[in-house]
Amino acid sequence: MGAIPADFAAGGEVLRIGGRTAEELIAQAGDTPLFVYNLDLIEKRVRRFRSAFAGVELHYAIKANSYAPLLSYVAKLVDGLDVASAGEMRLGLAAGTDAANISFAGPGKRESEIAEAIAAGVTLNCESEGEVERALAIGRGRGVRPKLAVRVNPDFEIKGSGMRMGGGAKPFGVDAERVPALVRRIIDGGGDWRGFHIFAGSQALDPAALIEAQRATVALAGALAEQIGAAPPMVNLGGGFGIPYFHGEQVLDIEQVGQALKDALSNRHQLLQNTYFTIELGRWLVGECGVYLTRIVDRKVSHGKTFLVTDGGMHHQLAASGNFGQVIRRNYPVAIASRFGDEPIEEATIVGCLCTPLDRLADDVMLPRADVGDIVAVFLAGAYGLSASPQAFLGQQPALEMVVGGGD
Amino acid sequence: MGAIPADFAAGGEVLRIGGRTAEELIAQAGDTPLFVYNLDLIEKRVRRFRSAFAGVELHYAIKANSYAPLLSYVAKLVDGLDVASAGEMRLGLAAGTDAANISFAGPGKRESEIAEAIAAGVTLNCESEGEVERALAIGRGRGVRPKLAVRVNPDFEIKGSGMRMGGGAKPFGVDAERVPALVRRIIDGGGDWRGFHIFAGSQALDPAALIEAQRATVALAGALAEQIGAAPPMVNLGGGFGIPYFHGEQVLDIEQVGQALKDALSNRHQLLQNTYFTIELGRWLVGECGVYLTRIVDRKVSHGKTFLVTDGGMHHQLAASGNFGQVIRRNYPVAIASRFGDEPIEEATIVGCLCTPLDRLADDVMLPRADVGDIVAVFLAGAYGLSASPQAFLGQQPALEMVVGGGD
Repeated sequence: MGAIPADFAAGGEVLRIGGRTAEELIAQAGDTPLFVYNLDLIEKRVRRFRSAFAGVELHYAIKANSYAPLLSYVAKLVDGLDVASAGEMRLGLAAGTDAANISFAGPGKRESEIAEAIAAGVTLNCESEGEVERALAIGRGRGVRPKLAVRVNPDFEIKGSGMRMGGGAKPFGVDAERVPALVRRIIDGGGDWRGFHIFAGSQALDPAALIEAQRATVALAGALAEQIGAAPPMVNLGGGFGIPYFHGEQVLDIEQVGQALKDALSNRHQLLQNTYFTIELGRWLVGECGVYLTRIVDRKVSHGKTFLVTDGGMHHQLAASGNFGQVIRRNYPVAIASRFGDEPIEEATIVGCLCTPLDRLADDVMLPRADVGDIVAVFLAGAYGLSASPQAFLGQQPALEMVVGGGD
Repeated sequence: MGAIPADFAAGGEVLRIGGRTAEELIAQAGDTPLFVYNLDLIEKRVRRFRSAFAGVELHYAIKANSYAPLLSYVAKLVDGLDVASAGEMRLGLAAGTDAANISFAGPGKRESEIAEAIAAGVTLNCESEGEVERALAIGRGRGVRPKLAVRVNPDFEIKGSGMRMGGGAKPFGVDAERVPALVRRIIDGGGDWRGFHIFAGSQALDPAALIEAQRATVALAGALAEQIGAAPPMVNLGGGFGIPYFHGEQVLDIEQVGQALKDALSNRHQLLQNTYFTIELGRWLVGECGVYLTRIVDRKVSHGKTFLVTDGGMHHQLAASGNFGQVIRRNYPVAIASRFGDEPIEEATIVGCLCTPLDRLADDVMLPRADVGDIVAVFLAGAYGLSASPQAFLGQQPALEMVVGGGD
């Protein structure tokens, strides 16, 4: 399985999150399964980003985790939010972020969503010529100048990234060669052109790949600006910073990426001199802060293999079960939270409570001896956890969520 | 892509479900995306089962679809319900099914769920020795004789089934060789032993594989009864009847399976002469009755490829997006509901509105020319649709559901 994040790896007889034991947290929340998010770890991430990327703005992609107490904390630390639906936009505004610092991307915006964003003063990252026309028409109808950026489908992607968002035919953004005409259309049509959104991939762990993609993005923004003959107020460089989930994966060296971006920006096109640059991050900011705690409700043996059956599962942690975009199932880092200091002495498979063979949390891992009543911790549960899982599946009890830290 | 189910394939200029056009249904429901379930098709399925499996009881596995108006209709047609959580048990009781006709399987039952089932008089399909002890203790504590069946992990599986539920080490049930001792423990411990639950696989389309598994199941039940020295009141033969989703898959010939089961039962062990046999079906009963309707909100071209972007997606139809247990993504049958009679003249890719490359509904399919405002129908949406999808993901608008038919 993957490595337990360094912030939790330090020993102790039982797992502690923000100084409190798993049992204490469960007692406070009232039950298992429980997601615990340590806000202090997010703050540490933001500080690390600021230090490595001085002068670059930081946006939070709230799709990673929009749990309101976490979101309102993160919103105060970052410079803006990226949202992917009107629902997320409402959450972002409710978290106190100024509409001027919210951008709305997503390939399938309804007319009602476009209208709501324009009315709120949120920037639309337009994904097609059709969307631009709809936004301009709505703006004219309301006598408002819509804030419109263009999402660019670049001809490159972040090599080796977990999800490819650029390069070739994509439903996202507008092919780079059609962007200059579209920006001129925005300007001529009375839109408030905000700049570019260029997203080339996600979940990258190789600094060289990110450096290459960011250099290409800065160059592409310069080339587009020159073709347009106007300076973009903003360039969103996308995100793509990954976290290690699986055995053998390395922690991303963001300082190396930051240094290279500084060099790339110092050589940027003349038209980009007054442009501000943004990086949008979701998973990298919040993924490691979360732990999913679920209690063992049965221990059983079948054909010599030991199964620990928990009260949680894929309905709360679809990605950890291996059913969210993965081709081959691999184990997220897990531990027996209630025997965190014990030596691993047996091989066991941890499954969820759902009546389907898809519901696996860890296959054949070495663990301390655990039994009914013990607590399993699944790490890396801060991003794309509960909200990205089929919570209603099989009518199971919902998961609870709580935050710790952040000055409590 | 797979074939459109025969009940919908018959032409017409626009798609009709239960005699009404997609637009009429959407107008009645109020918006898209919309799941429409045609109850008449379920009733037809039940009749077909009754004809092919005379004398065998039919249970509905409500995990397939527990939408209340559908469930209350199905509950009246079948002999009982199989549930997989206390939540589903409550839905089953609310649908009017007698507790005596509800059985509760699932490897991770909480003590509170076991207690609730015993109090209600529901049969627990026990998945382990530990669960039996917990149930007996709760029964003693309440002065109630708990209804306990034993779920058997058979040494065989349905060959070629979509999900393997038997054969080898499994978290489900009790290995067959330990079952006799466990049944004696139930009887000696004061439990009301109800029989066996033997589930060997799901989503099988090959009648020969189902026939072989059912024969082996009847033989195993007889052998276990002989070792126990007592007759099981009930044997749940599992389910496993599949429906064709993908190109090249065949409709299951259940009549052939029914004939073979009749033969197998006529030769069953003496101890099983008064046993009643049950088949539990979910997907086969309701899968084809459902259609997911979603509206096209953008049409765009990238690098020569046409994308139709809809207001629905994987947050409502995870399985159709290829992210629910599939290793290789294949296309469910889809159509342009609003141009159902038009000739397919262009290749297009249908995607959902989520800002992730995982959100695909159909890759590179031949379709009539469709544009913004047209309606896409995704078939085979009656089972494992909305409830098996990450509905909260990206804060999108929820899907609506409605039933048609059933005498309206």
